[in-house]
Amino acid sequence: MVSYGLRKFRETMMKKILTFVLLIGLISGCSGEQESSNSADAEYKTYKWRLVTSWPKNYPGLGMAPEKIANLVEEMSNGQMQITVYGAGEQVPAFGVFDAVSSGSHQMGHSGGYFWKGKVPAAQFFTSVPFGLTADEINAWVNRGGGLELWREIYEPFNIYPIPAGNTGTQMFGWFNKEINSLEDVKGLKMRIPGIGGEVLKEAGGIPVTLPGGELFTALQTGVIDATEWVGPYNDLTFGFHQAAKYYYYPGWHEPGPMLELLINMDAWNSLPKHLQVIIETATKAVNQDTLDEYLARNNQALTELVEVHGVELRKLPDDVIEEFRAISNEILSDLAEEDEVIGKVYDSYIEFKNNVTEYHKISEDSFIEARNK
Amino acid sequence: MVSYGLRKFRETMMKKILTFVLLIGLISGCSGEQESSNSADAEYKTYKWRLVTSWPKNYPGLGMAPEKIANLVEEMSNGQMQITVYGAGEQVPAFGVFDAVSSGSHQMGHSGGYFWKGKVPAAQFFTSVPFGLTADEINAWVNRGGGLELWREIYEPFNIYPIPAGNTGTQMFGWFNKEINSLEDVKGLKMRIPGIGGEVLKEAGGIPVTLPGGELFTALQTGVIDATEWVGPYNDLTFGFHQAAKYYYYPGWHEPGPMLELLINMDAWNSLPKHLQVIIETATKAVNQDTLDEYLARNNQALTELVEVHGVELRKLPDDVIEEFRAISNEILSDLAEEDEVIGKVYDSYIEFKNNVTEYHKISEDSFIEARNK
Repeated sequence: MVSYGLRKFRETMMKKILTFVLLIGLISGCSGEQESSNSADAEYKTYKWRLVTSWPKNYPGLGMAPEKIANLVEEMSNGQMQITVYGAGEQVPAFGVFDAVSSGSHQMGHSGGYFWKGKVPAAQFFTSVPFGLTADEINAWVNRGGGLELWREIYEPFNIYPIPAGNTGTQMFGWFNKEINSLEDVKGLKMRIPGIGGEVLKEAGGIPVTLPGGELFTALQTGVIDATEWVGPYNDLTFGFHQAAKYYYYPGWHEPGPMLELLINMDAWNSLPKHLQVIIETATKAVNQDTLDEYLARNNQALTELVEVHGVELRKLPDDVIEEFRAISNEILSDLAEEDEVIGKVYDSYIEFKNNVTEYHKISEDSFIEARNK
Repeated sequence: MVSYGLRKFRETMMKKILTFVLLIGLISGCSGEQESSNSADAEYKTYKWRLVTSWPKNYPGLGMAPEKIANLVEEMSNGQMQITVYGAGEQVPAFGVFDAVSSGSHQMGHSGGYFWKGKVPAAQFFTSVPFGLTADEINAWVNRGGGLELWREIYEPFNIYPIPAGNTGTQMFGWFNKEINSLEDVKGLKMRIPGIGGEVLKEAGGIPVTLPGGELFTALQTGVIDATEWVGPYNDLTFGFHQAAKYYYYPGWHEPGPMLELLINMDAWNSLPKHLQVIIETATKAVNQDTLDEYLARNNQALTELVEVHGVELRKLPDDVIEEFRAISNEILSDLAEEDEVIGKVYDSYIEFKNNVTEYHKISEDSFIEARNK
């Protein structure tokens, strides 16, 4: 054992030294100098960043993903980096996240790429496209199949560095106050459905609407919309949609495995020392998986409650409606690919990967599930 | 701009201060004192650890997972922690990893839990059991469904702290020099197949063998075994099994989503400061996903090469053979659960989660895949 006095002396010395280190950092910070990210001051100074999101504050799954990233970064950096997370509307509106990060008013954002389809049409491939990749498949394409390089290329002109940051798994088609027995029932249907899914609905005769999550319950209850998709049982139960709609339709053909995104202002990113960059990338990758784990672990329990306690009617979309949606989806995607070279490049990479992984899954996981469920 | 002289001065000062900080750490280290993990010396001292594995050095997928963990830990800790990775046989044999970590001769190991079934029968549930959970499902059970707490409980008597550390996805049933057209063909079949899969084969009349990966090619080529499972196309192509066997069978009913494990000696783990513990947990979670991504991205290409270039015959196991294997599996698993209370507790948790997630997947991902593939 070391005596209390010696330990106290050591602790005091350590504090003095650390104060000195911080002072050196501050002095160089005050010089206004812009150094490379590996310089000594960037290496040791503390960082306090702000992160805006498109989700209600602390919303299960979606909203907790950036909170978890922030916690991990602070713990792993031993307090060197602190990130404060804001809910939609606290500092910028739900759909203002991309602009906030692009302009640098905020260093970080957490959202879904298909919200920016007006600005960056190809961004939709990195969230989810109808009849596209599942959660595992989009992870493999983005992280190991060339997707991430393309994603960074298309966000680069906006001064944004994206990192995959969560996945909900296959979503539900959603909540309906009208039964869908045939394609006729889709005509005139007013439904909240973002991204390419919305375009498919429009082409099939429906009326797609884009609204942030927080406004959906009232819109559904007051009849402003006939139907809405949101996420799946775990999140949908939280919003109480079962009190505003009668039928719950599957499968979620429009969003088979939507990937969320962490957006980082490029100048802010480049100002970080290497170890903090790796900490952010790794924390975000861990949360990407944790989010999917959470949805998968909670969805069935929530579904059981919806059906058995709240009397929700679970319905499967008729085959001919699915087939029509699929045909329209394929057309819209290939038309989109013709719009410009960048979209075409992303589309080609996505479709080639999808064809490959679909073939492989047929003899691996799909074949196993068939064997297990018989 | 700060002058070169001033920068040089700052750098020199920084080095001197850091040397002093390290010295203080060393002085307290020499005192032989055992302090709590949050003490100042544990916080700042450097750690050099050794990690032994059950895989050939730098083997794609399996063997690269611990290398990636080591790299991330070193980068995120800014060099505070360095982990050296050893291949099977370099310091301990492939199947000596558990004992090495348990005894503390090595701080870390990377392996698969079903190799320790003689010591810890319940460990098999945390790798893979026949007709059990897929990669996503076991992630959700372990990380969000109570599995991890049970896993840590059953390894605790061995002084080991486990972390999920990679997944290959659904494996192939494997390589055969005999055709399997009926249950008769399974009788007398000598096959390398570890874990409960091997027990199922035995019950069906076959002869299961356990051998490390590095010995499989020769055993297959010389006729010591008639068949072997290994992983899937990406890894199997590397080992050249197509030069030693004719038929490649699917589905991999025996290992639907095997989870690898990082093993940490409990005393070594407890000696770490909190930020290094979080760094290790987070790096390992990130690699858990990256490994699956890698397999998924590479398997189809490898399969195409095996079939189209090397003329491998891809075969589906007959339905009645699958059904018999499933019936035997269910029986073996429920018998195993009766053996003792601990196995029973793990079994109950696993089966309840499996039933829930299977039901949910039927209306979500499975239903989507059916819609996509039609």
